[in-house]
Amino acid sequence: MVIEQFDAVDLIRTKRDKGVLGTDQINWLVDAYTRGYVADEQMAAMAMAILLNGMERQEIKDLTLAMIASGETMNFSGLSKKTTDKHSTGGVGDKITLPLAPLVASFGVAVPQLSGRGLGHTGGTLDKLESIPGWQANISPSRMTEILEEVGAVVCAAGAGLAPADGKLYALRDITGTVEAIPLIASSIMSKKIAEGTAALVLDVKFGSGAFLKDIELSRELARTMVALGEDAGVATSALITNMNVPLGLAIGNANEVRESVEVLAGGGPSDIIALTVALAREMLAHAGLPDADVEAALSDGRAMDTWNAMIRAQGGDPDAPLPVARETHVVTATRSGVLVEQQALPFGIAAWRLGAGRARAEDPVQHAAGVDLHAKPGDTVTAGQPLFTLSADEPARFARALEALDGAYRIGDVGEPILDGGPLIVERIGK
Amino acid sequence: MVIEQFDAVDLIRTKRDKGVLGTDQINWLVDAYTRGYVADEQMAAMAMAILLNGMERQEIKDLTLAMIASGETMNFSGLSKKTTDKHSTGGVGDKITLPLAPLVASFGVAVPQLSGRGLGHTGGTLDKLESIPGWQANISPSRMTEILEEVGAVVCAAGAGLAPADGKLYALRDITGTVEAIPLIASSIMSKKIAEGTAALVLDVKFGSGAFLKDIELSRELARTMVALGEDAGVATSALITNMNVPLGLAIGNANEVRESVEVLAGGGPSDIIALTVALAREMLAHAGLPDADVEAALSDGRAMDTWNAMIRAQGGDPDAPLPVARETHVVTATRSGVLVEQQALPFGIAAWRLGAGRARAEDPVQHAAGVDLHAKPGDTVTAGQPLFTLSADEPARFARALEALDGAYRIGDVGEPILDGGPLIVERIGK
Repeated sequence: MVIEQFDAVDLIRTKRDKGVLGTDQINWLVDAYTRGYVADEQMAAMAMAILLNGMERQEIKDLTLAMIASGETMNFSGLSKKTTDKHSTGGVGDKITLPLAPLVASFGVAVPQLSGRGLGHTGGTLDKLESIPGWQANISPSRMTEILEEVGAVVCAAGAGLAPADGKLYALRDITGTVEAIPLIASSIMSKKIAEGTAALVLDVKFGSGAFLKDIELSRELARTMVALGEDAGVATSALITNMNVPLGLAIGNANEVRESVEVLAGGGPSDIIALTVALAREMLAHAGLPDADVEAALSDGRAMDTWNAMIRAQGGDPDAPLPVARETHVVTATRSGVLVEQQALPFGIAAWRLGAGRARAEDPVQHAAGVDLHAKPGDTVTAGQPLFTLSADEPARFARALEALDGAYRIGDVGEPILDGGPLIVERIGK
Repeated sequence: MVIEQFDAVDLIRTKRDKGVLGTDQINWLVDAYTRGYVADEQMAAMAMAILLNGMERQEIKDLTLAMIASGETMNFSGLSKKTTDKHSTGGVGDKITLPLAPLVASFGVAVPQLSGRGLGHTGGTLDKLESIPGWQANISPSRMTEILEEVGAVVCAAGAGLAPADGKLYALRDITGTVEAIPLIASSIMSKKIAEGTAALVLDVKFGSGAFLKDIELSRELARTMVALGEDAGVATSALITNMNVPLGLAIGNANEVRESVEVLAGGGPSDIIALTVALAREMLAHAGLPDADVEAALSDGRAMDTWNAMIRAQGGDPDAPLPVARETHVVTATRSGVLVEQQALPFGIAAWRLGAGRARAEDPVQHAAGVDLHAKPGDTVTAGQPLFTLSADEPARFARALEALDGAYRIGDVGEPILDGGPLIVERIGK
């Protein structure tokens, strides 16, 4: 890098004044920021200018490629299988990766799933899997390739070597109120997915109270931006826009979400989890050249479960070992009979977080058995006195603050009242 | 301060989403930033959000008062004289403080002028005065009061104790492309002026190529914002909007600007310097209860010059000592006969800076004899071969880059061509 090729203040001013940054300028900015020559306060001002003034498609592509170039890339082109991956923008009760990865892999497709840990009210796939005794998130790239060839699915931690500029920028955005910038979200997600070397990618872009982006229009914009980025980078990409106003499934936590995922892999489980898993699996399999695969059959006949067991064992886990159980539970019952008309995702996510299922800081541990189990979903008829949900925690002191989060988060109404679930689960598909 | 009273990210998000910050929030933000609890990168994101989304009058007032509260304040209420001060947003050849302060003081009004040093292409009043042998910018508050009582005018460096939050924020804005935010400019200027304890204030808000704000509408907005701030803080404030498209006077530098100021105090000097000095003096004297003072008489009969001599001596300077002269000069002559139709302020300011009259970093020294002397102003008839301007520097190597800056900065046209001086010098007055 030629340090003095550009001046950080000039580039900030360009974006501040709604100008367009050139490829050379973006390459320089990302490189200089990664090396510490552009200061955090300069990148913070730039991030706010990007959030408020936006970026053009070419700028977002340049930013994504520059972040990829800041680190290592992976390459699965030597595999005998086609690769396809999924990314979700995160939600409450979103354990879809757990049944989805083995389901898709059971058709002979490789699913190299680099996942993250939870922060705040949204859970992390690695946290959930770590409730399985013995399971390890850290896998070397060569072992990852082996597992993909033999089992087909691997869910592991992304190494720090992948798009390190993104890691640095994400931490900065987190403390400067600039997380919600569409160009920065899109380039952050896509830089890691493209660097990971997958041939195809399916995005689950959520909207609603429990999602990162509340507004469906912003979710659409993010989905379109990421699909375009994938196309520009040669990764076949499509997206489903999905509703995150209501928790996904009945389990919110870690061990309980694994339990629910295993139910789905055994041919049962809640209908919303099955529906979303099947829809995403079809998208992924279509990218891999199998548009007519009978996805439901693989769930009902045990093929997906076999791949799950192999996948968990390949990473040191024992799929038959009992999952951790919380020391304390607290059951909330219906105060009247009627219909459950409302169950807001965000407060239930916050409650699970406060019970110990999530973390406030990246270095905090999670309590694998903590969380919320729902006993009714919006639209269900309930009877006074029946359990509505159960809170689980290792420390009873946590119940009070979790219940506080749930105040006003659900409501039992009369038969015939509209159900406030924000509409259908899968709203639309974006992509070719 | 209660550290956890607010969350910096929440406040950034409020401003990012075009919300209004409350008094408590702004007080907390400024205090927490001064103490280092709010990080530079957080304040940079906030500054960019303020630049792009603006602030309401109450927010700007709160910000200004919070910056004043971050440090010491001065108090001149014990003086037997009324106090009035002037602030200029800075320009090329702007030496107006030098004749103005003694002129106003010659009417028995106290002018406590806390000034700064130059940075970039705009000069600093202290740099100019420091070309006078023996003159000292650092004066204790008690000595300042003495000089105000005895002489009436003092021009000195603002102590670091005045509005330290502003000093910290200004340095941050400088490297993050957030200098041009009207609410931040207004609160930065006014926090120091209000903390200084003046009873009245006249603002010279410049627009045009050589000014900090190029656009007259932005200058008007800044002037209105500062006049409102002064009113809200009990300081009688008015502003003149003045044209900075052409250098002020004939001298751009340090020692040469002192020389030109002394000419004005001796009853001569360029007409634009006289006009602006007289207009600002009338404003200041009107605030001090002397709206009918015969300002021109004080320039022509030597009263202003007597006060100048006393003011320079009071700070250790010798007003009769020869001023420094540059080791090298380079004269540029007219290549044709005609009328000087253009003379752009910014390139001439940059040329003087490159000759050594200005500094690129706050810690650099300036060369007092370096600068530019103009021999013709826009509208003047010139003859081929006649000197147009003289560059002065201590190091001949500096001429090339100064001349580069001046390429295309002036033009000799035909008689009858429009003069591109951007219109009248004083455009309007804002205030009660």
